[in-house]
Amino acid sequence: MTTRNDAEKRDADDPLAPLRDLFDLPEGTIYLDGNSLGALPRATAARVQEVVTGEWGDALIESWNSAGWIALPHRVGDKIARLVGAGAGELVVADSTSVNVYKVLKAALGLAEPGRDVIVSERTNFPTDLYIAQSVAREHGCELVLLEPGEQPADRLDERVAVLMLTHVNYRTGAMWDMAGITAQAHERGVLTVWDLCHSAGAVPVDLTGAGADFAIGCGYKFLNGGPGAPAYVWASPRHADRFAQPLSGWMGHAAPFAFTTDYEPAPGIARYVSGTPGVIATAALECGVDTLLAAEPYGGLAALRRKSLELTRLFADLVEERVPGFAIESPRDDERRGSQVCLSRPEGGYAIVQALIARGVVGDFRVGSDGLPDILRFGVTPLYTRFVDVWDAVEQLRQVMESAEWRDERFDQRLAVT
Amino acid sequence: MTTRNDAEKRDADDPLAPLRDLFDLPEGTIYLDGNSLGALPRATAARVQEVVTGEWGDALIESWNSAGWIALPHRVGDKIARLVGAGAGELVVADSTSVNVYKVLKAALGLAEPGRDVIVSERTNFPTDLYIAQSVAREHGCELVLLEPGEQPADRLDERVAVLMLTHVNYRTGAMWDMAGITAQAHERGVLTVWDLCHSAGAVPVDLTGAGADFAIGCGYKFLNGGPGAPAYVWASPRHADRFAQPLSGWMGHAAPFAFTTDYEPAPGIARYVSGTPGVIATAALECGVDTLLAAEPYGGLAALRRKSLELTRLFADLVEERVPGFAIESPRDDERRGSQVCLSRPEGGYAIVQALIARGVVGDFRVGSDGLPDILRFGVTPLYTRFVDVWDAVEQLRQVMESAEWRDERFDQRLAVT
Repeated sequence: MTTRNDAEKRDADDPLAPLRDLFDLPEGTIYLDGNSLGALPRATAARVQEVVTGEWGDALIESWNSAGWIALPHRVGDKIARLVGAGAGELVVADSTSVNVYKVLKAALGLAEPGRDVIVSERTNFPTDLYIAQSVAREHGCELVLLEPGEQPADRLDERVAVLMLTHVNYRTGAMWDMAGITAQAHERGVLTVWDLCHSAGAVPVDLTGAGADFAIGCGYKFLNGGPGAPAYVWASPRHADRFAQPLSGWMGHAAPFAFTTDYEPAPGIARYVSGTPGVIATAALECGVDTLLAAEPYGGLAALRRKSLELTRLFADLVEERVPGFAIESPRDDERRGSQVCLSRPEGGYAIVQALIARGVVGDFRVGSDGLPDILRFGVTPLYTRFVDVWDAVEQLRQVMESAEWRDERFDQRLAVT
Repeated sequence: MTTRNDAEKRDADDPLAPLRDLFDLPEGTIYLDGNSLGALPRATAARVQEVVTGEWGDALIESWNSAGWIALPHRVGDKIARLVGAGAGELVVADSTSVNVYKVLKAALGLAEPGRDVIVSERTNFPTDLYIAQSVAREHGCELVLLEPGEQPADRLDERVAVLMLTHVNYRTGAMWDMAGITAQAHERGVLTVWDLCHSAGAVPVDLTGAGADFAIGCGYKFLNGGPGAPAYVWASPRHADRFAQPLSGWMGHAAPFAFTTDYEPAPGIARYVSGTPGVIATAALECGVDTLLAAEPYGGLAALRRKSLELTRLFADLVEERVPGFAIESPRDDERRGSQVCLSRPEGGYAIVQALIARGVVGDFRVGSDGLPDILRFGVTPLYTRFVDVWDAVEQLRQVMESAEWRDERFDQRLAVT
């Protein structure tokens, strides 16, 4: 059994430990919710201040040129591309994940072989992906088929399927799909793939190019540490660049926005996926977040972060099994199939247990079950700043919460607007 | 003829003059481009810092509840509603203008009488509105009919027309449509109206309720002073609330986002127009901008700002006519038809003249002509911070630029990425 001393020793020996100093973390909190909202990078506050007071306040409209605002979605996009196995010029920062799901589903349907009118996704996908897919399916007269838990995508990919849309790492369980294998199966069957990277980019090595994927989208506020509601991003394979349509054909995706012509002409490649005027302050904050991941490159980059992440989640699951009875571990134990989080379930009390942990300074989150799925207690690890001792202490706090039964106190069952 | 002393005296007598102190304006610049990017409010930098370091950095995920992030699109939306004659709960902050144009055009087409398959707009509308309308028209098998300059909307509103989409104040000329009159004409003919308020909200009194309008959208970064690429907003008449569809059906527009159900169920009313996770930092900055306009309420609010704006633009046009020969004034001289800007044209040199003025510290902007329209030199006035003496000095600088012919210097003809 791992002791707290063992955990401290692993931190002392951890070559990635210095990366934690890139963050402003609150004292006394063990933050295991970076899979929902990444922590604040130390560089962000000053950079945002520079954008607000210097670039906006002093230089005003001139900053679209002098401060490079106009190129910001592309500059930050190129940085994110390095984290997900994409090339420069293939990925842009734009809009929200939801809006980008809409864009890529429409693009994929436009490229699909004639007669294919089914979109396949999975019932446990993050709801916004499903809600948008429902809308697109309705608009295009398509059927939306949802994989049930345990089903493999290949079983549903017949000659009617146009697009397979999966989230690489599941938000509920942390289960990870084999992107390369499934993409190959899809392509063998003439199906295009859309990958949602919200819960993988920045925590798990992603290789869109190597996997031969078609489209990808992801958010900026989880493992990319871009801040609350940070802009999202969108990628299209260079195979499809210049070929796909953009329904949200805003002026910033025009081939010549400042020609102010009456007719839309899409910019070459991925640039057409920039729609309206980019949010400069938010994109600048996102860049600081992405930079925290690029700062790990001299330390072995995402491969090294991934090794540490797996060690952290394995330790978490092992300690819960050893020390805190009564929980099922809903995340895969197999390293190949586990993202960067550990999810627990229990027949009752999940919400209140999470609240009791938060009161003790251990921040995970709760995801309600629906459609017969269990309620989930989620604990995300962010290898840039999560320590082995944090995992040890978190499980110890969970043990104390259960042993004391303090979670049964009614103050922990007061539902908040955001749970 | 107005002298500089006269202008100084008008500033000294101006009851709105103290409002200028709400802004951090750079020394030595006469900023006449608030119709493109509003100036930095004095409160914004500290508020953004509080959101970044306090709400995000210290409180982390908890701030969705404790700092009210989840309600931010509605709270700021309610404030914008007060500027455009809308009620509380009718308007939300979300996405970009381009994305919101898409939403409302789709919603309007969904509500239109069966068989109507024409969208009417105007050739000189801001291009992004036209680009999105082209996309929507293509998707719905509709025809997009564009009014030529000088045409009246009523002439084109026949029984085939579903939607009339106009920008209240034209971005090129500052010409303002009669929102109430045109909306009434449209409704008589069974046509729904979409109003783009980008160049009017915050500078011109807008009364969506009084006009009986159907849908409206607008941007946050012009007269609302929300910062570069600030989030946009969207309004639907309460007549249509609960009835219209939202193609970008993201989870934050769901009736119960944190129930994580598989099927989309739209939130009541305008809340369904929030799509993805809202950009917290940017929306907080926008709130500071909107607050600068609400701060004018004790001074007479938008009615008082409008009076000053008209005096400023009238003075600008008068001084150009009196003192700087060779320019045509493209903005309406009639107060009823003029927004908050003065646009000039000239057979040659427009771009270089604007650059020469910028080099002298007078910031307006240039809009290239297309489709046979002339190039435009634009000068926006923001009654919150533009002074009469600024107008006088700007015209004097223009006089000197023309008299010296310095604009012919080749350094002023180096085209920038953003012009």
